[in-house]
Amino acid sequence: MRSSQLFSPTRKEDPADAEVASHQLLIRAGYIRMVSRGIYTFLPLGWRSVRKIEQIVREEMDRAGAQEIRMPGVQPAELWQESGRWEKYGVELLRFHDRKGGEFALGPTHEEVVTDLVRHDITSYKQLPVTLYQMQTKFRDEARPRFGLMRGREFIMKDAYSFDLSVEGALKSYDMMYEAYTRIFDRMGFNWRAVEADTGNIGGDRSHEFQVLAETGEDRIVSCPSCGYAANVEKAEITLDVTERAADAVFSDVEEIATPGAKTIDEITSFLGVGPEALIKTLIFVADGEPLAVLVRGDYEVNEVKVKALLADLEGFGAGVKVLELADDALVGKLTKAPVGFAGPVGLSIPIVADLSVQPMVDAIVGANKKDAHLKGVNHGRDFQVARFADVRMAQSGDRCGRCEDGILEEMRGIEVGHVFYLGTTYSEAMGATLQDETGQLKPMEMGCYGIGITRILAAAVEQGHDDDGMILPTPIAPFEVVVLPLQQRKEAVAEAGESIYSALKAAGIDALLDDRDARAGHKFKDADLMGIPLRVAIGARGLEEGHVELKARAGGEVELISVDDIVAHVTALVEAAR
Amino acid sequence: MRSSQLFSPTRKEDPADAEVASHQLLIRAGYIRMVSRGIYTFLPLGWRSVRKIEQIVREEMDRAGAQEIRMPGVQPAELWQESGRWEKYGVELLRFHDRKGGEFALGPTHEEVVTDLVRHDITSYKQLPVTLYQMQTKFRDEARPRFGLMRGREFIMKDAYSFDLSVEGALKSYDMMYEAYTRIFDRMGFNWRAVEADTGNIGGDRSHEFQVLAETGEDRIVSCPSCGYAANVEKAEITLDVTERAADAVFSDVEEIATPGAKTIDEITSFLGVGPEALIKTLIFVADGEPLAVLVRGDYEVNEVKVKALLADLEGFGAGVKVLELADDALVGKLTKAPVGFAGPVGLSIPIVADLSVQPMVDAIVGANKKDAHLKGVNHGRDFQVARFADVRMAQSGDRCGRCEDGILEEMRGIEVGHVFYLGTTYSEAMGATLQDETGQLKPMEMGCYGIGITRILAAAVEQGHDDDGMILPTPIAPFEVVVLPLQQRKEAVAEAGESIYSALKAAGIDALLDDRDARAGHKFKDADLMGIPLRVAIGARGLEEGHVELKARAGGEVELISVDDIVAHVTALVEAAR
Repeated sequence: MRSSQLFSPTRKEDPADAEVASHQLLIRAGYIRMVSRGIYTFLPLGWRSVRKIEQIVREEMDRAGAQEIRMPGVQPAELWQESGRWEKYGVELLRFHDRKGGEFALGPTHEEVVTDLVRHDITSYKQLPVTLYQMQTKFRDEARPRFGLMRGREFIMKDAYSFDLSVEGALKSYDMMYEAYTRIFDRMGFNWRAVEADTGNIGGDRSHEFQVLAETGEDRIVSCPSCGYAANVEKAEITLDVTERAADAVFSDVEEIATPGAKTIDEITSFLGVGPEALIKTLIFVADGEPLAVLVRGDYEVNEVKVKALLADLEGFGAGVKVLELADDALVGKLTKAPVGFAGPVGLSIPIVADLSVQPMVDAIVGANKKDAHLKGVNHGRDFQVARFADVRMAQSGDRCGRCEDGILEEMRGIEVGHVFYLGTTYSEAMGATLQDETGQLKPMEMGCYGIGITRILAAAVEQGHDDDGMILPTPIAPFEVVVLPLQQRKEAVAEAGESIYSALKAAGIDALLDDRDARAGHKFKDADLMGIPLRVAIGARGLEEGHVELKARAGGEVELISVDDIVAHVTALVEAAR
Repeated sequence: MRSSQLFSPTRKEDPADAEVASHQLLIRAGYIRMVSRGIYTFLPLGWRSVRKIEQIVREEMDRAGAQEIRMPGVQPAELWQESGRWEKYGVELLRFHDRKGGEFALGPTHEEVVTDLVRHDITSYKQLPVTLYQMQTKFRDEARPRFGLMRGREFIMKDAYSFDLSVEGALKSYDMMYEAYTRIFDRMGFNWRAVEADTGNIGGDRSHEFQVLAETGEDRIVSCPSCGYAANVEKAEITLDVTERAADAVFSDVEEIATPGAKTIDEITSFLGVGPEALIKTLIFVADGEPLAVLVRGDYEVNEVKVKALLADLEGFGAGVKVLELADDALVGKLTKAPVGFAGPVGLSIPIVADLSVQPMVDAIVGANKKDAHLKGVNHGRDFQVARFADVRMAQSGDRCGRCEDGILEEMRGIEVGHVFYLGTTYSEAMGATLQDETGQLKPMEMGCYGIGITRILAAAVEQGHDDDGMILPTPIAPFEVVVLPLQQRKEAVAEAGESIYSALKAAGIDALLDDRDARAGHKFKDADLMGIPLRVAIGARGLEEGHVELKARAGGEVELISVDDIVAHVTALVEAAR
């Protein structure tokens, strides 16, 4: 491709709404354009990258024995009613009527459609195992679409679904996808981790997220340098030393202290001049309509997944808790008689559960359930009663690994680009996808689902690879592998050398871009850096007279002078090593 | 690929709603499955074909200098309001609200989105010409989705848009697309015609449809064997000999005849024992609310495009007629005082226009504007007045070519698989996509749009290629190029020969399928025929002992015995010739 014929409009300014590097750079470098909130057009450069990402995913899915199909984007309500999700799924499921009044939705995921397919067309256990996948445009009506391709409303997913008739078979299918994902993210050149993830309510009990490490990632993950265990903080197991208060602990009297305007842990600790570990944080939740308070030491975060699990055997709640959410401001006001930020356990008339970190605390500081006031000298047992002490907090840096009990967890941030999920029989039971096994017994199929955010991968690659000058993309997913820059396009010898090196690279099977525009050298360098093309061959008049051109890797390192005769072989070797 | 691992469920019965061969066979052979009316899932076989179709189109678009992008499926109403189509486009444009109440539509086409893109990102005439294309899932909420992939609601289109600053440039872009389409449909092995098509109201004046010839095609086209002219019957120019009535023609008296229940031309002619050329057909239209009658000889069809053009200079109508449509039953009843089927010109109080074919008629038979009755001995001038005689009929077989005035047109039916359209400045003016030319003058961009029905091509291929046993697909778009059938899978020598031939074909770069199922030979033959794989290599135990296998082309011809040593080279040569 020649730049003179490439539609790649670059911009100097960051778009006003772009908060993260990938969003800024994908717009500036002419990869994408916004059409509506969370809805983008992919320009030639962006689309080339997306197609390379798709192709890597496709090759590895095929290698793993999965078969590509294409399901529709528009899905009939009937299927979602059968699975029960028409009611359960929130407003992110965009629903509409067709001209005849039929109810439809724009598919955010395809469990229903694929289960409907196999229940009609897989009629014998001998046809199993089957894993079907597609690359498809999804729509999820996000409340706050943001960060460009990171959290859009319309996006491309690779979604796969496996069907087996036994749990062992399903886990084998799961493992094959896990391994395919490993190859996929390795091939793309990512620094990534597979982490254990919460399985939520969907059923099944095995789930991994594939996280590209980046400081701007929305997900918090911990990993153990000692045993390699890694998990989403929501799921991460930690080894806790259950400690009690010292037998001879002396309790102070409770005393109210004025804390005008100090609501957050940071505000209170700086106001009182104490560390956060002297405080107890009180959060009010609602579990299927029933309120409860959850306490945790001031330097920790509550893990809702653990709270939800705990409620299963707590009096007044039980195993069926479906929705656990933070109470809204009105309810907090009603229960604590104070604005949000001043809740505390003393005098509260709802069940209280507390994290193990609260158990050894003496003379804690808590909210006073009163505006602009806290209490100090507060002690559980004496001043308030805890229904249950349990591990209900998020893992964080410095915690002891829950797997090897030895290593100290390190926290990092990630961008979720893939997810594998053992679903079990949730959908197959609801939708009657059953088969007779070898013995003639009718069984629901065991399912797994496996997603990869194709377009999000492009954003993740930019988050992981960029500097002040622009993107730094890995060779396998960059729109071009090398860019050839004749620095003085009007000098015949330079232009000719550009053409000849470009043609030779193309002939060697290299995906090259020739910047044949009549533009200044600085402009060409800037655009090449912005676009993130991995290798750059600059051809200058003076160098050419001396028989060499300049080679530079976008990822860093020095400019190398390479002889004109060697440059094609040299670049070809570098590209082939980087593919 | 091995059949044992291929999800390709075949069916013995035609689906109840499938009226045409492609719909029946694509379901039976396991290429597609219906999810909702006009909405399909592509199974592995169907998807492989679609991807091959896409790839041929992509290669030829790239070769023509077009650049691939991807625009979104969900489009904001604002853009359609700017172009004026939010109001004009009918209910086929599926509209909905997002969670915040914003108005959106599922894109059936992308003129608005692409014009919005270029008006922001093409800032100099030096960036032109540009042709952008995409392969994308469209939605058109058809009133009667039917014939499977032929007229679905969700379908894949290749749509391209060209931008130039002069008419000459735009027509050059048009020609490049025309040539690319020619290569595309040639490469796919179709028997096809490019035909001139009506340009409707959109502006611009050049348009060609690419029609795959098939008896089941919905489009009627005529072509001239003498000069090669070909056009949609709506557009086709014919040479008419304007004839008057003989000066000495004697008019009979008008006589009412009873024609109980005879409404159609066929019913009346068989009832009265006359030919259709003795009848005048009377159709009631409504042009922007105003009714008019159009007369045509009984063996011809009215061409609405010509009627609409005629109205431009007819008193009481004028150039601005937007909607011309057949009157509904109620209006016909009101105007003729009779049920539909008995309309005639005598006593009608609305303007009457008549085709030139009516001009020489003497003593014609017409509807009596009375239930179960017709009039004979009817003569224009005496019994009713014609506001205008003009050419308002469809071309048909036997008409004289309008281009060379010499050849006799032949009529055929086609399936429209592509369309190139010179748009002019309709969208660029409405949406302000303007640029300064070399002289500094601000001009709207000249646009063209170019569509190919990717998924419809698969249906068209089946309509053009099938027999009683199943599909007959051209090699370039068949899901596999050759199928290898070990006829006795349990015999080790047969199975091994199958594996070895299959592996060698794969190694030679042939897209082969190995039917390694433990199934009867007849079953394997039946499935291979149904799926339409172009070449079939059958391996039998006896033949193997004699050192040969059986080769047969799906398209016909005899079974050839080929030596085991030669089969791979032989098949490879055949496939390469057919690609």
